Order: sequence, then C-alpha cells, then structure tokens
Amino acid sequence: MRIAVLGVGLIGGSIGLASRDRLGARVVGYDPDQGILDRALELGAIDEVAPSPAEAAAGADIAFCAAPVRELPGLVEAALAAGGDAVVSDVGSTKRELVARVAAHPDAERFIGGHPIAGAESAGVEHARADLFDGARWYLTPSPTASGVHYDRLQRAIAEIGARPQAIDAESHDRLLATVSHLPHVLANALVGQAVAAASEEAERLPEAGPSFRDATRVAGANPRIWADIFASNADVVAAEIDAVVERLREAAAVIRSGDRDRIYAWQQEARSARARLMEGARTAGPLRELRASVANRPGTLAELALALGRAGVNIEDMALYPAPDMRTGAVTMWVAGDAEAERAADIVRGLGHSVDIVSEGQ
Amino acid sequence: MRIAVLGVGLIGGSIGLASRDRLGARVVGYDPDQGILDRALELGAIDEVAPSPAEAAAGADIAFCAAPVRELPGLVEAALAAGGDAVVSDVGSTKRELVARVAAHPDAERFIGGHPIAGAESAGVEHARADLFDGARWYLTPSPTASGVHYDRLQRAIAEIGARPQAIDAESHDRLLATVSHLPHVLANALVGQAVAAASEEAERLPEAGPSFRDATRVAGANPRIWADIFASNADVVAAEIDAVVERLREAAAVIRSGDRDRIYAWQQEARSARARLMEGARTAGPLRELRASVANRPGTLAELALALGRAGVNIEDMALYPAPDMRTGAVTMWVAGDAEAERAADIVRGLGHSVDIVSEGQ
Repeated sequence: MRIAVLGVGLIGGSIGLASRDRLGARVVGYDPDQGILDRALELGAIDEVAPSPAEAAAGADIAFCAAPVRELPGLVEAALAAGGDAVVSDVGSTKRELVARVAAHPDAERFIGGHPIAGAESAGVEHARADLFDGARWYLTPSPTASGVHYDRLQRAIAEIGARPQAIDAESHDRLLATVSHLPHVLANALVGQAVAAASEEAERLPEAGPSFRDATRVAGANPRIWADIFASNADVVAAEIDAVVERLREAAAVIRSGDRDRIYAWQQEARSARARLMEGARTAGPLRELRASVANRPGTLAELALALGRAGVNIEDMALYPAPDMRTGAVTMWVAGDAEAERAADIVRGLGHSVDIVSEGQ
Repeated sequence: MRIAVLGVGLIGGSIGLASRDRLGARVVGYDPDQGILDRALELGAIDEVAPSPAEAAAGADIAFCAAPVRELPGLVEAALAAGGDAVVSDVGSTKRELVARVAAHPDAERFIGGHPIAGAESAGVEHARADLFDGARWYLTPSPTASGVHYDRLQRAIAEIGARPQAIDAESHDRLLATVSHLPHVLANALVGQAVAAASEEAERLPEAGPSFRDATRVAGANPRIWADIFASNADVVAAEIDAVVERLREAAAVIRSGDRDRIYAWQQEARSARARLMEGARTAGPLRELRASVANRPGTLAELALALGRAGVNIEDMALYPAPDMRTGAVTMWVAGDAEAERAADIVRGLGHSVDIVSEGQ
C-alpha cells in the first residue's frame, strides 16, 4: 500500500508513522517546508519526499491532506487532479466548506472528508506518534456520490492504524463539533477574559485559581492561526451555539439570583443528570456480532449505509466491503458490539432496502 | 496543641490527619453522624470524640468548622459559645454571609473565616489525607476586629499543615471565587445542557466528546446539596458574573458571525494573551527576604496588615507575631520571596503607619 501525506505536521506525521508501522505502507510526503520534510525523513514518518501535492498523490492508494483548514480546498483539488485511483481525504476540523467546494470537482467521488478527534499538547512532526489515533473517533463525511470501494479502503486503513471510523454528514459533523469542541473553546476564551478583568479590579495580582478554573481554561487562546480558520469556516453554527448557551446562562442567572435553594438545587441536579447521560453515551457493551448485508455496488450505497448507521449512533467496530465478481453487487460485513445494537443496525440496513443477516459468534 | 474538628468529612478528616501528623496535636472530633466518628477514629483522623460542638471546642486552641455552608453559622456560634480561648475558623466556600452573621457575636474577635482551595474527587472521611493541603492556598478572612494573637495562631497552624495562608476580605474573596470557581461550574452546567440538547436533535446517541469538552464539563452538576448552598450564599455576585460573561459571549458571537478571519484571529490572540497573563501570575520568584515590623498589639492590627498585603497580591511565604512582654506592642516578621516583592511589602507596611526593616539573608 502506498500512502501520501500532504502536510507533515503532528497529524500528518502521525499518519505517516502509523501507516508504515501498522499498514506496512510506503509513505510519500509533501510539505511546502523542506526543513520539515528533512526532519520527517529522519524521524521515519515518511519514506520519500515528493516535490508537489500532485506528485505525492500520483500512484497512492490514499492521500491524506493534513494542512490548516483554509489550505485544504487547494490541496485536495491538487491531489484529485493527479488522477489515478487514490482516495483523497483530509483531517480538517470543519467539513461543510470543504465538502461543498470539492463536490463540484469531476473526480469528487474519490474524495471523502475526514476528521480524527486526536491531538497533542504540542504541534509539529517532532511530536508525531504512531499511536496518536489509538482508540480515537475518526469522523468520515462521504458525500452522497462517494465511491463505496474508496470509502471501504479509507475506513479500513483508518481502523488498522488504531482509530474508530464513523460516517457522518458534513452538516451534522460541523454542528456536533460546534457543541463539543468549538463552543468549549469560546467559553474558555470568555472565562480568561473575565478573570483578567476581575483581577485588575480586585488586586494587582491574580488569585490562585482552583482546578475547575484550570480545567475550564486549558484551551483558551489555542493556536490563533488554526482556530481563526476553524471559527471562520463554521461561523454561522458556532455563533448560533453561542446564542443558545447565552440563553441557558440567562436562565442560570435568574435561578441563582432568586437565591432560592430548592430552585438552585433542582437546576444543579438537572446538570448532574445531563452529565450522567453524556457519560452513559460513552459506554460500549456486549460481545461483537457480525452483520452481512448484500448491496448494489454503485457510488453512494456504502456511504448511505454508513451515514444512516452513524446518524443512529450505531457504533460500527469494523466494516468491510466485498464486491461480487460481477462488480455489480457486493457484500458488506459489519461488526457491532452487543445483540441489541446488532438488531438495531440490522433494522436500519433493512430500512434502506438491503437484505441482512446477523451471524452468531463462531459461525 | 489541641485541635477541634466540627464535621469530619473529607476536609475535616484531612485537617485531623494533618494536625496529628504535622502539629503533633491532639484532635477531638464532632459530627452529627456517629458512624462517621467511629470511622474517623479507626482511620486515625481524630483522637477522641466529643458529644457536641461546644464540648469539642472547649479547651481547644483552634476549632475548625467543616460542615456544608448553610450549617456553618450555627456551628461557629456553638463553638464560640463554648468560651475558652479557641480561635474558631471554618472551611466554607463562601464567606460574606458567615462573616456578617458572626460579626454580631460577643466573641467575634476569636472568629476568623477560612477557605482552603483543596479538594478531591471523592467526599467523605474515607478519602481524607494528611497531605491534602500541601501547597494549597488557604484564604483567611479576618474581620477588622480580629485578634492578632488568634490570627497568628491560626495562620501558623495552617502553614505547618502544608498550606499557604493568605488574608483577604470576605467581599473580595466571594467576588474572586465567583470568577475562578463558581462561574466555571455554571459554564460547565450550561455546556452539558447544550450538548444533551444538540444530541437529541442530531442523533439518538451522543457524539464522541473531545478533550476540550471533557475538561470543560468535569465539574458539571457537582454535588447538588453543597453547590446549591454555595450558589445561594453568593447569589448576587455569581449572577453578576454570569451577566458579565454573557456580554463577553455576545461580543464573541458577533466577532465569529462576521466570518472575518483577521478579526477572529485578533480575538483569539487576545484570549491567548489573557491566559498567558494568568499563567504568569502563578509564578513566584527570588530568594526569601525577612521583614520585621513593629506594631501595636491590639485587635485588628495584624488582620489589617495581612489584608493590605493580600489585597496587593504580596505572597507572604511565612509570618509570625511576637508580642512584647508588656503585650501592648509586638513584632511581626514576614518572609517574602524576592527583593522587589520585599520592597513592595515594606512600602505597604509603612503606609499603614508601622516601622519596618528588611533583614538581609544571614542576619
């Protein structure tokens, strides 16, 4: 297998290391900065250097574009323009803008957006690690016309380098990430601003901050270049999330201002239940069950299937597509944890008009 | 030395363990729950049990009231009513309500409010530790009439059990804590509420949350009984903090909604600088310098001194009061890190009308 990494920073470098280590792949790297490429070679994150994005992508099975969000459209288009059969993906933190832009490309069916929920304190290929993605969710945003063979190749490679791929449409991705990532960053920024203002009123020095403050502000002012891009490319949704949280805070202020212990207690208890639900959502349960579905092997079928399962929150532990010899139909196998989850998955697959069987363990 | 602990939970139990361990004190405990007292004896958090708060406080040098905020006024008053010479303190998270209430007590000069910035994931004497307060800030809120001898005894014991005492007036304490503790809890609650709402719109299951979300929501819905008391007893200030953060969030929404990368970049950069200032505030610097001041030994002098230094953010590493034989004047020695800090401290002490010398190392 041949993997192209376009942009060799923390994420690109880690994809390179993991691909060599776990896929036995040959990794070709491109980066506008020659010094970074030299260092990536030294560190074993890439096997060879390509002088341009197109030359890196040519002949690759998968090309990962791992540049800041605003540079991704150009990079993806350059990779697609190289021709060949590479599935072109990316690792950007927002997806709508990119997916909409690439949709117009003649080879759009070879593009599948991606976003690994992984990172580290420090940026740069120096900090790249082969195990960076172990156990991490890796969102994939296939468009309705994405090729099943390419989707399968990409999700399989991602699973093999240790991550857990899950399909989601670009709009849902950007909304969810606005809530669980972009909004926490905005709140952290507001909180440090408030603390600095409070300190200048109260004392010449800042107060000793407790653990709740440190936790809440850890990401305040995160890399401004990267985050300006993320906020700008998801501006409407993030702004709407802020509006919504402002409403919640107004309600909280009214509850607290009342000084009514019972009312405050009920509000605090509600937050406790919400957190418990969120924690519960993170559990996985039960032994693996295998589902086998027969599907038409045409663009979009596998993407549609993966998206429907992702939308329902079904956790696909593993997935594989086996095209039939005539290449017109195919078998999809999926592994899902737990009997209830397997039944739910089967219902969804049937709902899309495919036949499906749940295969018992040992079969 | 004899220490009374009224309320033997995580904090009270840890004060007991640390007092036995590091002060060589005999610790007498009171708790309304006999089972907790039995367990505290087993764990060595107390040496003996008293049947009432007054009987625990009688004959003690220091009585720490370590109950939930709403029970503190009654407990402090019971401890003062026991008579004797005990300095009565507490460990509540808010201070105005308690300090105002106790001010009317005839023995108010023996009461000095306190609040250690320490805690643990789990409550209860089972989780008490002798090292819980190591390096932790411990705020003290002496009233203007607090006795210097009692203040000195209390701050010295707190320093010996490993914490770093700092004087602050009750109003400033409650404002600062509203910003660095109560507000982060409110934001965490709002964020989990938002995430649950987003999840029910978007999918049947919740999305995989990134580290920024986990950090930002760790304290959501914290112990509702304790937090209802904290919010209720600091309601006006917390509500005002929420109003202020709502204004900041409205501005943030406007900046982001503009989609203007440069403007968003500048806003993100501003948060970065604010966070850097907060981090910088946490540093300490320079070798210890000793200050010796002569003061009148009357109620309030030491409290006034400690409060003025605390207000200016001077970090007193250690402090001791030596009453003169006539008991009408006294010498206060203070240790401060760094020459500049020592000069600043000396200016403040002089500004209060006391004579002061900075003693060089080795003298």
